[in-house]
Amino acid sequence: MSIRIGILGYGNLGRGIECAIKQNPDMELVAVFTRRDPKTVNILHEGVQVYHVDEAVKMKDKIDVLILCGGSATDLPKQTKEYAQYFNVVDSFDTHARIPEHFDAVNEAAMNNNKVAMISVGWDPGMFSLNRLYANAILPHGCDYTFWGKGVSQGHSDAIRRVEGVKNGKQYTVPVEDALERVRAGENPALTTREKHTRECYVVAEEGADKARIEAEIKNMPNYFADYDTTVTFITEEELKEHHSGIPHGGFVIRSGKTGWNEENSHIIEYSLKLDSNPEFTASVIVAYARATYRMSQEGMKGCKTVFDVAPAYLSPVSAEELRKHLL
Amino acid sequence: MSIRIGILGYGNLGRGIECAIKQNPDMELVAVFTRRDPKTVNILHEGVQVYHVDEAVKMKDKIDVLILCGGSATDLPKQTKEYAQYFNVVDSFDTHARIPEHFDAVNEAAMNNNKVAMISVGWDPGMFSLNRLYANAILPHGCDYTFWGKGVSQGHSDAIRRVEGVKNGKQYTVPVEDALERVRAGENPALTTREKHTRECYVVAEEGADKARIEAEIKNMPNYFADYDTTVTFITEEELKEHHSGIPHGGFVIRSGKTGWNEENSHIIEYSLKLDSNPEFTASVIVAYARATYRMSQEGMKGCKTVFDVAPAYLSPVSAEELRKHLL
Repeated sequence: MSIRIGILGYGNLGRGIECAIKQNPDMELVAVFTRRDPKTVNILHEGVQVYHVDEAVKMKDKIDVLILCGGSATDLPKQTKEYAQYFNVVDSFDTHARIPEHFDAVNEAAMNNNKVAMISVGWDPGMFSLNRLYANAILPHGCDYTFWGKGVSQGHSDAIRRVEGVKNGKQYTVPVEDALERVRAGENPALTTREKHTRECYVVAEEGADKARIEAEIKNMPNYFADYDTTVTFITEEELKEHHSGIPHGGFVIRSGKTGWNEENSHIIEYSLKLDSNPEFTASVIVAYARATYRMSQEGMKGCKTVFDVAPAYLSPVSAEELRKHLL
Repeated sequence: MSIRIGILGYGNLGRGIECAIKQNPDMELVAVFTRRDPKTVNILHEGVQVYHVDEAVKMKDKIDVLILCGGSATDLPKQTKEYAQYFNVVDSFDTHARIPEHFDAVNEAAMNNNKVAMISVGWDPGMFSLNRLYANAILPHGCDYTFWGKGVSQGHSDAIRRVEGVKNGKQYTVPVEDALERVRAGENPALTTREKHTRECYVVAEEGADKARIEAEIKNMPNYFADYDTTVTFITEEELKEHHSGIPHGGFVIRSGKTGWNEENSHIIEYSLKLDSNPEFTASVIVAYARATYRMSQEGMKGCKTVFDVAPAYLSPVSAEELRKHLL
């Protein structure tokens, strides 16, 4: 019998979950829940119903894992602990600094209701976190580096669009190649914010807007751009659409460490992602962890879990015997 | 209280375990066991005793985890199931094709005696296997690639040294850069053995030996070299010692996969290692899994386990709360 999945929230991530379910024959999409009028939401699966979010709890016995696809700022802090009372859930809560309080709130709800609630699943937090953990455990004496990109930062793109005279815009975070090479060479450099990443902005200005002022305003924006080498390129709406409509991302997690009685040997562990679609990849990670969530729940586990708590075998549809035979 | 570790077998790997224990303050080396005369074995830790291997079982209550540092060809198939009767154990059994039977034999011994026996720990099998599993679970539609090197292959170096007229020699396995780039570009190429790796041999010939014959014999050796582009470079014993006395290794695990309703988006997941010392890195992985072995045993688990069965949090000396706060 397949694992019955519900999706709550149908934006880029929810759509990515739908696509990922299609690639996993042991899973079945049962329902999509939305805050919008369900009649206005068209999903990809034929024969699967879209419901208003208020209908979700009524379907708790028809869904094995509910995947929460809301945002980390306001949706998930409420939703995950709410729905963990009724469902096994997975979310992609990505506000790193608030993970401990989110964990505590969700854990209470899940423990009290014998549910498994998997939080902060994706690639960062998620696969990048896992790689930081593995590499730190293996090489206790070393330095960690995380580089992001080349990829679209939604937050920085939004910041550009808030500048007066800007009609549209997109921002790419780009790792500095020279810094990457120094890290890979085992130099263990101390890198400033500016030395690690550059920021490339593609901006569509409104008719007659003062481009020099826009450029200066972007480049000097505190927190977002002032600490980086930022380039601003003005393009047309058509160029933006043609060349910058994707949502690529990726990055690098590198640990450089020493071993030996006198730490005479150096080692580099590197994990990298190059993603055409950030939401679809995040969704693919989430769906694998939804499988783990279901199985862990079936085994009687409960409470809030993160990627750190999941034995890798739970993620695969393949049996333990086959995994040992073919992947070990 | 620290985790009490015993080492059985004191070659390159055993020495690496000793070095790794020094970097992990929650662990303590209790004893080293050897088949040689213990008086002839000098270890690095002061105040730690070397015993004959026949003394090991008598010390079963003084050791939390016994790390088995023998070879996969003849030692571990006997030792792991033997010692899993008395100790929690970790081994680095790396004969991929024989892992299922090794698992079954070790599992029986460990289950019957309430011990945890962790097998096939290191980087391949080990970290590479984990990365294959994670990447396959995330991207079910895709292709796997593993490249090894640049690094010393012990088996191939041994094969060179068996050629008549060869005094000494060392072989490096080298991934073909062009093949790596094609994989990273998402081309999903079908690569032959020859297209993936080259083999570089550094050979010290005996006085007056026929170098042309040696070169031909190496290059045409079935299984080892015939299927590869192999280079043979004759050097002196001094050059070999000066430039080729290290045991570096490493490699790349890459999965290239598609997502999207019509698989319109490509993704590349890459994990790579660049290691100055193959045995010291392997030892560092093993020591992290020895910690996991101890903890899983403390929680009442038993039986044979592999890296696939270990939730990542068990590997770290840091508490779950701290991990969530700082690494997630």
